Amino acid sequence: MSRLKKQMEFVMEVDKLKKITRQNYLADGSRKENDAEHSWHLALMALVLYEYAREEEQPDLLRVIKMVLIHDIVEIDAGDTYCYDVEAGAGKQEREQKAAERLFNILPRDQALDFRELWEEFEEGHTPEARFAKALDRLQPLTLNYLAGGISWEEHQIAVGQVLERNSPIGESSPDLWNFAEEIIQKAVNKGYIRKDK
Amino acid sequence: MSRLKKQMEFVMEVDKLKKITRQNYLADGSRKENDAEHSWHLALMALVLYEYAREEEQPDLLRVIKMVLIHDIVEIDAGDTYCYDVEAGAGKQEREQKAAERLFNILPRDQALDFRELWEEFEEGHTPEARFAKALDRLQPLTLNYLAGGISWEEHQIAVGQVLERNSPIGESSPDLWNFAEEIIQKAVNKGYIRKDK
Repeated sequence: MSRLKKQMEFVMEVDKLKKITRQNYLADGSRKENDAEHSWHLALMALVLYEYAREEEQPDLLRVIKMVLIHDIVEIDAGDTYCYDVEAGAGKQEREQKAAERLFNILPRDQALDFRELWEEFEEGHTPEARFAKALDRLQPLTLNYLAGGISWEEHQIAVGQVLERNSPIGESSPDLWNFAEEIIQKAVNKGYIRKDK
Repeated sequence: MSRLKKQMEFVMEVDKLKKITRQNYLADGSRKENDAEHSWHLALMALVLYEYAREEEQPDLLRVIKMVLIHDIVEIDAGDTYCYDVEAGAGKQEREQKAAERLFNILPRDQALDFRELWEEFEEGHTPEARFAKALDRLQPLTLNYLAGGISWEEHQIAVGQVLERNSPIGESSPDLWNFAEEIIQKAVNKGYIRKDK
């Protein structure tokens, strides 16, 4: 039973992901989203949008879903770093490595290694699974920001060049999803949700 | 592109799951949990606890995860029905069928059928995948309730007989998880979190 106790300790430790607030809002703009909700949303998107992964990539769906379910767990210790915040980005890698060390090691050794490997693979973004997971991780907040009337872009005074640069990697995994994303960005600019570049 | 538009419409419609509040609290007791967080938590538990499914059952892990990701989507229209509320339980099935009809049909036909089938399978609970998904769906709030000091049992004046009856189906899928659950229930009774039966 000691193996199960470790596993349940991990399961309950990561309950804290529900309290890590992100910068983007829910679609209705009523409040900011948290990391657990975001992770659920990505896993659901993986199910629905799997067919749009570039054919040569053929990511394994279960592995994509595992990745998105755990990709933000390190933020329990390291906090959410806003994707356009260059300064906060500086210490991010070190903070997250330390967090991964503590959090995944609550699990029995074999699972700790598995989860750490999944997370590193996601971070590095060099496999078809990681590329697709990262595409979803960009498309989701982009679409929510648009539906919420661009509140978080406005709050952080984000310009279209930044949004395009941030989101264009979607195209590496899925040209179709990138077309969709480009349309949204164009509509967001037209509606004044995203500033034009200076 | 009209297929993708339907899919993204569904993806964004189900954003509302983040606003459906459940009766149980987070582990730290700070607030009630919502359905999106709960669904993420179950999917993560499926990954971590998969080895405890009864050997003869051999549920398919990807199918279990799909089920738990979508199992509460109907509550966007039908609302969360507290598991111990017999009165509210009366109209539940009809409300949820109507909700499934509307929500899943936002998707293209093939996916609408797939998702509906997954959800019906979960509800009926007659396959190894549905039994394991349901076991997690019981174990998670039980453990959260215990960690939160039994607030929601207290709020609803739940007695130990009800908790045992509600949770014993865990054993159909996983004797190990049911042993763990029984221990928690016993500790909760000892601490006065759950009332003894009258």
